[in-house]
Parts: sequence; structure tokens; C-alpha cells
Amino acid sequence: MSSVAPADGPPHPSAAGSASTAASFHEMWADLSPVGRDDDSGGYRRYAWTAADTDCRAWFRAQAESRGLIYEVDRNGNQWAWQGDPLAGDAVVTGSHLDSVPDGGAFDGPLGVVSSFAALDELRRRGAEFTKPVAVTNFGDEEGARFGLACVGSRLAAGRLTAAEAHELRDADGVSLPRAMEAAGCDPSAIGPDPERLARIGAFVELHVEQGRALDVSGDPVGIASAIWPHGRWRFDFHGEANHAGTTRLEDRRDPMLTYAETVVAARREARLAGALATFAKIAVEPNGVNAIPSLVRGWLDSRAADQETLDRVIAGIEQAAHESATRWGIDLRIARESFTPVVEFEHALRDELAKLLGGGIPVLGTGAGHDAGILSASVPTAMLFVRNPTGISHSPAEYAAEDDCVAGVIALADVLEGLACT
Amino acid sequence: MSSVAPADGPPHPSAAGSASTAASFHEMWADLSPVGRDDDSGGYRRYAWTAADTDCRAWFRAQAESRGLIYEVDRNGNQWAWQGDPLAGDAVVTGSHLDSVPDGGAFDGPLGVVSSFAALDELRRRGAEFTKPVAVTNFGDEEGARFGLACVGSRLAAGRLTAAEAHELRDADGVSLPRAMEAAGCDPSAIGPDPERLARIGAFVELHVEQGRALDVSGDPVGIASAIWPHGRWRFDFHGEANHAGTTRLEDRRDPMLTYAETVVAARREARLAGALATFAKIAVEPNGVNAIPSLVRGWLDSRAADQETLDRVIAGIEQAAHESATRWGIDLRIARESFTPVVEFEHALRDELAKLLGGGIPVLGTGAGHDAGILSASVPTAMLFVRNPTGISHSPAEYAAEDDCVAGVIALADVLEGLACT
Repeated sequence: MSSVAPADGPPHPSAAGSASTAASFHEMWADLSPVGRDDDSGGYRRYAWTAADTDCRAWFRAQAESRGLIYEVDRNGNQWAWQGDPLAGDAVVTGSHLDSVPDGGAFDGPLGVVSSFAALDELRRRGAEFTKPVAVTNFGDEEGARFGLACVGSRLAAGRLTAAEAHELRDADGVSLPRAMEAAGCDPSAIGPDPERLARIGAFVELHVEQGRALDVSGDPVGIASAIWPHGRWRFDFHGEANHAGTTRLEDRRDPMLTYAETVVAARREARLAGALATFAKIAVEPNGVNAIPSLVRGWLDSRAADQETLDRVIAGIEQAAHESATRWGIDLRIARESFTPVVEFEHALRDELAKLLGGGIPVLGTGAGHDAGILSASVPTAMLFVRNPTGISHSPAEYAAEDDCVAGVIALADVLEGLACT
Repeated sequence: MSSVAPADGPPHPSAAGSASTAASFHEMWADLSPVGRDDDSGGYRRYAWTAADTDCRAWFRAQAESRGLIYEVDRNGNQWAWQGDPLAGDAVVTGSHLDSVPDGGAFDGPLGVVSSFAALDELRRRGAEFTKPVAVTNFGDEEGARFGLACVGSRLAAGRLTAAEAHELRDADGVSLPRAMEAAGCDPSAIGPDPERLARIGAFVELHVEQGRALDVSGDPVGIASAIWPHGRWRFDFHGEANHAGTTRLEDRRDPMLTYAETVVAARREARLAGALATFAKIAVEPNGVNAIPSLVRGWLDSRAADQETLDRVIAGIEQAAHESATRWGIDLRIARESFTPVVEFEHALRDELAKLLGGGIPVLGTGAGHDAGILSASVPTAMLFVRNPTGISHSPAEYAAEDDCVAGVIALADVLEGLACT
């Protein structure tokens, strides 16, 4: 780790000492790895404003202070570590998040934060001279595992979630978001839009592990994001008729599980035909008894596609198949769209500048996953870097990226920061 | 209601006074109806050893005492109300259960208990002279809604469930069966086989609402059971690979929900081709998140057929289809038979005697549902009467039988008891 400078002192570009960038990355990664990991599953349970999250935040603060960066927490609980003057404007900001989905992997989020600190170390090693302020960020509650809404910290800052709406968010135990923040020692009294802060950002760059296999297929360790696919969630309520599974004749049944099953199969077919994604992964059944034909099967559809027209076609195909199946089995079907995010095209100028800074031939790829970068892109010029994921597995303990690829990501991020913020 | 005799006094055959059998039935039915009914669903939540169950048991005791019957609770918590000497032997016993499935109907169970008391009232009205003891019973925890195993009270009595196994039963909150009995004021210290009690029973007759439409189709208010179909429960564990639903390419997925869905569709097809029943009604998904391809989908199959060979063929067909689907989608499939009950043929001599007592032309029908009578039939000569269910719906708030048919059931049961136990 780089040597320690006083927390309130000026940045020390030479403080990285002899530690190489790879060693810097490795040491931080090993330090953070045990925090919030479940021994049985091997996955992470770093939910917003829990003890594990508080430990992650303490780690962030220690990293900031050990580098002599100016540490602050904004009105929405997002953490910032500044190289240079936070109020100067035209800042270049990088970072990601430290929270996780239930039994998530080590890389989704933390790779971006660790790489940001390691890239600063690399720039200091290079002796780079900063002409703009640079900040590392940790956005709060990106995964939404606890309160059911993703990207809460960035949504609040960007005015995409109001303070009143945030006060209504509750976890499974009925604890509200502000109460949870307070319990974690973070003042929630001023949560809400933060336009002055966003106005001081000239560019935001988020590095993230790829959550697919495009870079593995192309053979590149690092790529640039073009866009986040439009995506949404739909709830399918299949209402049938409760009855005894051991005595009711097949011809007298109105079994909603059959319609659910046929809709699951149809969703896969429609997605395959369109080159899109469609998944039924969450279900609730009433009464969910072995010998009780369900009165209600509720299934949630997650679907994404490269463009709006394709997504519309996929959803229309699935809905038609579901309605046909419902008619066949005497099921009352209601479909509600619970959330929707249109396509996010990252700013072309910034994207092209990154491609130029990183040399020719770097792949540019779309992604189906949502990110804080996607939320901020409406307010700030935003770009993303992806690091190769050889299996494509994400949101799982098996999520993985090779350390060499992670270091390649750090170097690429350092190149980008140097190009954007240094002479 | 019939007039009250001293609780410890002898039975009074003439005590029915002027109340008609229909009025006696109607009054008891109205008295019991509100107990344990959920206002929102309209269904019953009378789970074993809960407050609602305790209220049902208090109702039973009050009915026994108001008729001057000898009231007792056996070592397994089953309730008994005796007309005559409990120790005399060769007793004719009738009754059913008062507990319910989640949001169950009013008739499954209680119709048999209420009809038993009403049939005793009818016999007293007729001035019948008893030559054998007659008892009304309420068997505990027939539905298994709380502890996951059906017919616990009769299984314990018949030695089909050991005391050690019963001590291992836990409800969803981790409360053991003995602890639940104790909390409801019932001593669990002596639970276990009760062969002496069963040896004193000469015949057991259970009246039950039909849980199908055979009597509606034949146009008869009452029928006699021939057999309980062989039936069982199988657990299908579909192990896939957890992954991000928004980013994982379809061709990289191992999504167990697809195999589950194809197996549900196959089960319906196999059952239809064989004239049997097969139902997937209970499911558990991990992690059950909207954007998380499941690592595990666990589905329970309930299947029944008129004979063993047909049931074997249905299960083999479903298992083959599930394995083929698992291979197609890269799923690791494990199938476990969780319970199985072979065909129960009710004793032919008793069945024929009932048919003779009830006159020619009464239909004799099989059923897919399990009952305490099915458990007891291995130890005691056992028979069942069914009352017409015009919709066939059961295990649902919509379960229904017309009051005229219920009264016809009471008269038939009284005829049977008179023929078996009176001069």
C-alpha cells in the first residue's frame, strides 16, 4: 500500500513509493475480500446500511485518508475521496459501489472502487500533474437488495428519486431507508437532489466487471460501453381456482401453474428469436401447498434488448402466448409493468475520447445491466469501462475476473484519467 | 339443539326432544361456522393446536357434554364422545376432523363430525336401543397444514408414525408438535401407538364431503367409498447456475426454471393420457430474485391413480420428460419420493353391509384423497360415506354441499349406525 499522508494535508503524487500498481491492487483486494462474505455460500451479503456495508464504507474512508485524499459524504450518503479541490468544478470522477446482491460475487461494484484507488496510485507513480480535480466515489445502495430499488444513491443525487419517495422505501423488516441510514451513523435529514454537486462534474467514468462474455469471445481484457439496453420488469398474475389436487378431475381444473409454465417456455422462445433476454426467475404461489391447486401464481418477467423496438416485440410475443394459454386453461391473467428504463446511450464524445486514449481496436459493447453510470448519464457526461469476465457469470459467488485483467483495467482507467485530468 | 343431560350421567336416547334432525344439523353448523374463518379470503385457517383449533375442540367438547356423552381425549390428542361404555369393546365409531388446509372450505372434515352428532340425535329421536357403544371422534391434525404431515392423530394411534418421529415434526416457526400440543393445553407426554383403543373398535365409518364430481354426475346425494387411490409426493430438485438475468447470454445459461416449466407441462400430459392426476402446486426458488437466474428450483409433484400400475406409468413418464429437459438445459436433476400410500381397499364385508343398509342403487366410488379412515383401515374394519359436492371444489373457500344433501348424509349415517349398533 502507498505510504500514508496526513488526512487533511495536500495530495502527494510521489507517495506511491515503490509499490507497483499490481501490488497496490492486490493488497486492497485482499483487504476488502473478507468483508460481508458468507462462509456457507461463499457469496457476499453487503446490503445497504447493514454492518457489512458499514465495514465496506470504513474501508473506503481508510483508503482515502491513507492517500491524503479529501474525504466527504454527500447529502445522500454517497462517499467521495478527492484528489484536488472538490469545489473547483470540471472534475473527473470515477468509482462504482461496494454493496452486493444476495450471495453476490466479489467483483460487481468493488472492482470499480478498488481500481479507481489503484489508478490514482498508478498516476502518482507516473508523476502525473493534475489540471483538474479527480474523485473516487462509492455510491450507496446500487443493487437495491435491501429496499427493492436499485441505484438509490445516484437516483437521489440526480433527482430520479424524491426524498418523499425515499422515505417510503422499507426493507423486509419494515425499517425505512432513512431509519436504516441513521442506524448506520449517516444523517438522512437532507437526502434529495444534489444538482450543484453534479454540476461540478465534467466527466464520470465507471469501471465494472463485464456481466457477459463479449470480451471473452473477442479476446480483449478491457472494453468500452456503448449503451445500456432498455429493460423492464413485468408482473404476471395468473388467477385460477383453488382446489384439491388429489380429487379434482383434470377437466374441472383451472390450474394457473400450467399457464405459468407455458409462459416461461414462450418467454425463452420469444427472446431467442429476437436475440434478446427474457427471464422468469421470481415466483409467488398461493397457497403453495403440495396437494392444493393454486388460486394464484404470480411470476415476474425481466426482459432486455438492444433497442426499444426489439424489446417491445419480445414483450408483445410473450403477452400473446400468456393470454392464449390463459384462455386454454380458464385462467384470469393480469399483466402489470412494474418498472422500465429506456435505452441509455453513453455520451458519444466522451466514449470516442476514451477509445482514442486507449488506442485503436478496443471493443465497444452494449450491456443489459443497469448501473449508477446509467442514472448519472442524464445529468453528466458519462462513460464506462468493462473488464473481461471469462465465464460471464455475475450476481453469483462464482463471479470472476483474472487478476491480470483487473490490472489491465486499472492501467486503462489510469490512462483515461490522465488523458482527461492531467497535462 | 337437544336438551342438556348431566355430563357424567347415562345417555338419554329420548333427549333429542322435538328438534328435527335437520334443525339439529343446521344449528350445529351455524355455531361452528365462524370459528377460524379468515374475513378476507372467506376460507378457514384451523391449523392443528392453534387458537382456532382449540376453539373447534371446545365446540366438540360442548357438543359431547350437552348430549350427556362421555368425553375423553386419547393419548394422541384425538377427541372422543361416547354413547355407552368406552371399554365394552366392539364399538361402532364415526367422526372425522375439524382442522383445515390453508384457506380451506367449511365441509372437509367438519361435515363428518357435525353429521355424527346429528346422526346420534336422529337415533335418539327414533328411540333406537343401542346394543354396542357408539363414539363420535375428532382426529387431530388430519390436514397436516402446520407440520407438513397429514393424519398425524390417526397415524400415531395406528403406529404409522412413531413418537420419536412426531417429536421431530416442526412448524414453519420451528415449534415442535409436542410443544404445540402442550401450548394448547394437551399433554403430549404419552403420544404413541394405541392398540388397546383400536382393538375396542368393531367398525369405523367416516362421512366426508366428496372432493370430486362423481355423485353430481350420477345424480345421487350420498355414496359409499370403495377405495382410496394409491398416491404419493415427489420432490424434484432442479439445480442450475446462478447468474445475472440482464446480462447472461441465453446460450450461456443453465436456467432451472425452464426445466421446471417443461416438467409441469409434461406432468399434465402424462396424467391426461393415463386418466390419472398429477399436479405441481408447491415451489421453492433460490434466490427468487427478479434479475437472478435461479441456482435451484424445487418443485413438488402430487400424483394419484386408480391403481398402482397406472401410477407407476405416470411417474415414469414424468421423470423421463424431466430428465430429457434437464439434459437439454444443462440442469442437474434429483428426484426424491417424499411419501407414498398404496391403494387402500375398504373392507368389502363392511362396505357391502352399508350398501344393504342404505338400500339398492347407492353408488360405490373411489377417491384420490387421503383420510383418517385410510390410515385406520389397516387396523380396524373401516368404511366411508360421501356427500355430493355439486362443483367438486374442495380445499377452497368455494367448497360447498347443499343442506338437503348434508341432511341426507346424516340420515344415511344414522341408518348405518342403527344397523351396526342397535337392535
